[in-house]
Amino acid sequence: MKLALIGLGQMGAGIAANLLKAGHDVTVHNRSPGKAEALLEQGAHWAATPREAALGAEAVLSMVADDAALLGITQGDDGLLAGLAAGAVHVSMSTVSSALVEQLALGHEAAGVALVAAPVFGRPDVAAAGKLTVVAAGDAQAIEKVRPALEAIGQKLFEVGTQPQQAALIKLIGNFLISAVIEGLGEGAALAQKAGVDPARLIEVLTSTLFNAPVYHTYGNLIAQGQYRPAAFALPLGAKDNRLVLQAAEALNVPLPFASVVRDKFVQAQALGLGDADWSAIASVSATNAGL
Amino acid sequence: MKLALIGLGQMGAGIAANLLKAGHDVTVHNRSPGKAEALLEQGAHWAATPREAALGAEAVLSMVADDAALLGITQGDDGLLAGLAAGAVHVSMSTVSSALVEQLALGHEAAGVALVAAPVFGRPDVAAAGKLTVVAAGDAQAIEKVRPALEAIGQKLFEVGTQPQQAALIKLIGNFLISAVIEGLGEGAALAQKAGVDPARLIEVLTSTLFNAPVYHTYGNLIAQGQYRPAAFALPLGAKDNRLVLQAAEALNVPLPFASVVRDKFVQAQALGLGDADWSAIASVSATNAGL
Amino acid sequence: MKLALIGLGQMGAGIAANLLKAGHDVTVHNRSPGKAEALLEQGAHWAATPREAALGAEAVLSMVADDAALLGITQGDDGLLAGLAAGAVHVSMSTVSSALVEQLALGHEAAGVALVAAPVFGRPDVAAAGKLTVVAAGDAQAIEKVRPALEAIGQKLFEVGTQPQQAALIKLIGNFLISAVIEGLGEGAALAQKAGVDPARLIEVLTSTLFNAPVYHTYGNLIAQGQYRPAAFALPLGAKDNRLVLQAAEALNVPLPFASVVRDKFVQAQALGLGDADWSAIASVSATNAGL
Amino acid sequence: MKLALIGLGQMGAGIAANLLKAGHDVTVHNRSPGKAEALLEQGAHWAATPREAALGAEAVLSMVADDAALLGITQGDDGLLAGLAAGAVHVSMSTVSSALVEQLALGHEAAGVALVAAPVFGRPDVAAAGKLTVVAAGDAQAIEKVRPALEAIGQKLFEVGTQPQQAALIKLIGNFLISAVIEGLGEGAALAQKAGVDPARLIEVLTSTLFNAPVYHTYGNLIAQGQYRPAAFALPLGAKDNRLVLQAAEALNVPLPFASVVRDKFVQAQALGLGDADWSAIASVSATNAGL
Repeated sequence: MKLALIGLGQMGAGIAANLLKAGHDVTVHNRSPGKAEALLEQGAHWAATPREAALGAEAVLSMVADDAALLGITQGDDGLLAGLAAGAVHVSMSTVSSALVEQLALGHEAAGVALVAAPVFGRPDVAAAGKLTVVAAGDAQAIEKVRPALEAIGQKLFEVGTQPQQAALIKLIGNFLISAVIEGLGEGAALAQKAGVDPARLIEVLTSTLFNAPVYHTYGNLIAQGQYRPAAFALPLGAKDNRLVLQAAEALNVPLPFASVVRDKFVQAQALGLGDADWSAIASVSATNAGL
Repeated sequence: MKLALIGLGQMGAGIAANLLKAGHDVTVHNRSPGKAEALLEQGAHWAATPREAALGAEAVLSMVADDAALLGITQGDDGLLAGLAAGAVHVSMSTVSSALVEQLALGHEAAGVALVAAPVFGRPDVAAAGKLTVVAAGDAQAIEKVRPALEAIGQKLFEVGTQPQQAALIKLIGNFLISAVIEGLGEGAALAQKAGVDPARLIEVLTSTLFNAPVYHTYGNLIAQGQYRPAAFALPLGAKDNRLVLQAAEALNVPLPFASVVRDKFVQAQALGLGDADWSAIASVSATNAGL
Repeated sequence: MKLALIGLGQMGAGIAANLLKAGHDVTVHNRSPGKAEALLEQGAHWAATPREAALGAEAVLSMVADDAALLGITQGDDGLLAGLAAGAVHVSMSTVSSALVEQLALGHEAAGVALVAAPVFGRPDVAAAGKLTVVAAGDAQAIEKVRPALEAIGQKLFEVGTQPQQAALIKLIGNFLISAVIEGLGEGAALAQKAGVDPARLIEVLTSTLFNAPVYHTYGNLIAQGQYRPAAFALPLGAKDNRLVLQAAEALNVPLPFASVVRDKFVQAQALGLGDADWSAIASVSATNAGL
Repeated sequence: MKLALIGLGQMGAGIAANLLKAGHDVTVHNRSPGKAEALLEQGAHWAATPREAALGAEAVLSMVADDAALLGITQGDDGLLAGLAAGAVHVSMSTVSSALVEQLALGHEAAGVALVAAPVFGRPDVAAAGKLTVVAAGDAQAIEKVRPALEAIGQKLFEVGTQPQQAALIKLIGNFLISAVIEGLGEGAALAQKAGVDPARLIEVLTSTLFNAPVYHTYGNLIAQGQYRPAAFALPLGAKDNRLVLQAAEALNVPLPFASVVRDKFVQAQALGLGDADWSAIASVSATNAGL
């Protein structure tokens, strides 16, 4: 397919590489051009603006940091909407608010362009390996159209609905549940440690049995070792996703008491100077609050 | 080994059967004798009291419902401590308070008997298959002595410390973390549903990726189907374990805000008439509170 | 003084009347002009826009519904900043976000106008009686300049700092503490009722002793009678103020677990169809959750 | 009346003195006899045991530290029940669990003695002044019988029901609401301070207006000054009352999310070494958690 990709962070770069490997014709754009070099050597084309990248593309994929960035690359004279032809598809892979996705969907419809939200689960190494899990929502025909691109970057593709904001929400719920795992493990580890049991032993027991899932292995080990730096996913980003899920839940009138507890932990973590740590450092707040 | 087993509920019966299969000499006791019949056919002996069961045994294993029951079978003229010879071992597998285990350990020591706490993870079918995970704590030599018994009933054996109450605590932490999974999934499922996404679809996405663990499959499916009856683990038992972990944490000065949220959910669940449902029915409280 | 007042809701109308009574020269503006009629009869002048109202005024007082309204009357060609002379003062009495006040302060400074935040405690009847409590923050000289106006409308004037956003925050804290009183009484009343004690009796005991304060009388009686309609202060407004205090606290890295609990109650209340009730209806959620 | 009083702590001593002042014939008992000396000089008689104190009394009042102490003075060969004549009344003024009161009521009934629960609001200076607020529940005739005694020690007497445990519960709710005031003020003060507003100023504003009640003055000043030692009411006692109200609420299926938050604060406070401070020191935990 003739594709464009906007946003060449750690995730975007891995995605772009896999699109190229799969034989797609890929034009890339990034705010700082340096990030594109390796991809250009692999055959990607460079575009100076999102609009340019979108010109002639059957689909534009975007993977940027937050709501503001997504708005920035989408709208305005240089935005991708200005470049996309009617009938083309914008595949938004960023983790952003479901409210923004809902709002963008209207603007896309007015422009005759389909918006597919397709956020992903997986960290940069998974993106590089082309093994992301992709959660897509939007018009079914539009999803079908971009399936070859989505299959090139992910191992699994789940369609969760016809409204793009539904996929945005599922992604936020997923991140919320990861944060709940971190908080739960943090509380449990503090309790074990106060009773003289090495948290690493606790994690070993848990992950050998009922909790034998990647998320418990990954975060369990970080917590057992108290290893919160360098940040793989920085704490303020975790706090942001927590805010987004609480906002989405508030808009739909759904109380999320666990997310409220996690929120207070993110706030306290920042007060305690953990703003540069990994988001899993909220687990260390449980230890601090237990006097450890 | 010459063993005794006190408590022939669903868990205890499966454990006894596996001890017999492994060739041990097993005497059993249960408050209601009927439960022993099948085991007697498989070669077990019957004892009229815990004390009698303990007479001559190298180790007595016990698996009963709660603190009161454990106290009842252990102490008094008919209790197992009255029957155990010095140097023998009591392996307590029940999920009980760590405070009780700590207190019992003193009484055992005075009687020259070792107390090994060895609670298990796994439901009745896992017990029947001899594939439980056993978490043991107590004197290392005592654990070594009963290793053949523990290996006959479990697939994995973790030693977590030399104080029996440490194993009791790890078990409580494990159940706490299961309850946290249930609550998290309940909140997420309510949010998904309010956004028009089938909770079953959410569970499918989650368990295909980061949350690919038995606990998410088991409870995710119950929640997706809203299938909380019949109870595999009744809600009041879950509430009891929640109470025990909060008490243990209070004694060690460890705040557990997630457990406090779960506590409020158990209380509300009982107020809403879910006292006869599975403990995972606290997930339905999230739906109710969201107006679903 | 030559004054202007923008915003003639229930609060603003009472304030304007007291300014007139005190002999000030008052020009008023409101989005819907009808509200001004009674005041014009009492000697007020009418202005078609905030800018016109501000022309020639020593100080403009504003009392509007929310952040958006305050921005609307302040900025732009018709905004009051366009009309105020250098050296004049804008007294913002609305309950708005401290972040907005902080941002507005910069714009005012650039225009040579002082911004004094002076939110008030008291309901419409208190405003009409000229007995509000005024909490002011901003440049000390500016506060001094508008003291005659503030004394005309309030019984008490507290200066809490030199940064206008500090007063905005104190107001939000005050509303947060009222919401905490409501939530606490709601929980206590549900518990009393479940034990067969009339909540009205509980309220009587409380307000006769340690809790003999207006806020307990007012809300205690509403809760005892379950009388949440018509709304004196609508639930969505309470939810908004809760959101504002949580945002302010997050910006300053202060966890507010009570505000998080209250947040969840506002969300549940809206899910249960209480969006048109008084904000004290969150107390009824405690009853609902207790199965009452 | 011919009365006995068991328990001569700070509260009991003040109560006894007022009974004497009102002309009653008072026999006293206390675990450590030294506390009785001043009262004997004022005309009280000494009894060596609760039973002896109760012999011939129309009513025995008791004011002891906790459930265990109340059980201890009531039951057994030396307990007051063994001394009271049929038709006499036991007035229990201690703050204890409503479950214990319910259980004691049965034992009293079997002994032909009426149990009136009459816990009080007020600190030792208020007790000494005879100005306590008394909250009574029990058989109406029994309350009538002891009215002269209750009026001698308190300014106000509220009857809240015919089941003694109802008064016990109201007392626990009262203490819960005080703890909620402390927590709310602690959160608000931390937020004010982080914004550069002196917490003392915040307290002044609050107590001048809506929150003009003794509980806000008393605790607001302690919090503003960060003055948590010496303890007027020690933190572990506050934690105990919090535990009691949560237990009572659990028994009645009433979720108390505010009490759960306060619980976590008591636990953290103890972890942070505040076990010897006043219970209002939980407010300082909010400051700590905000990085102050």
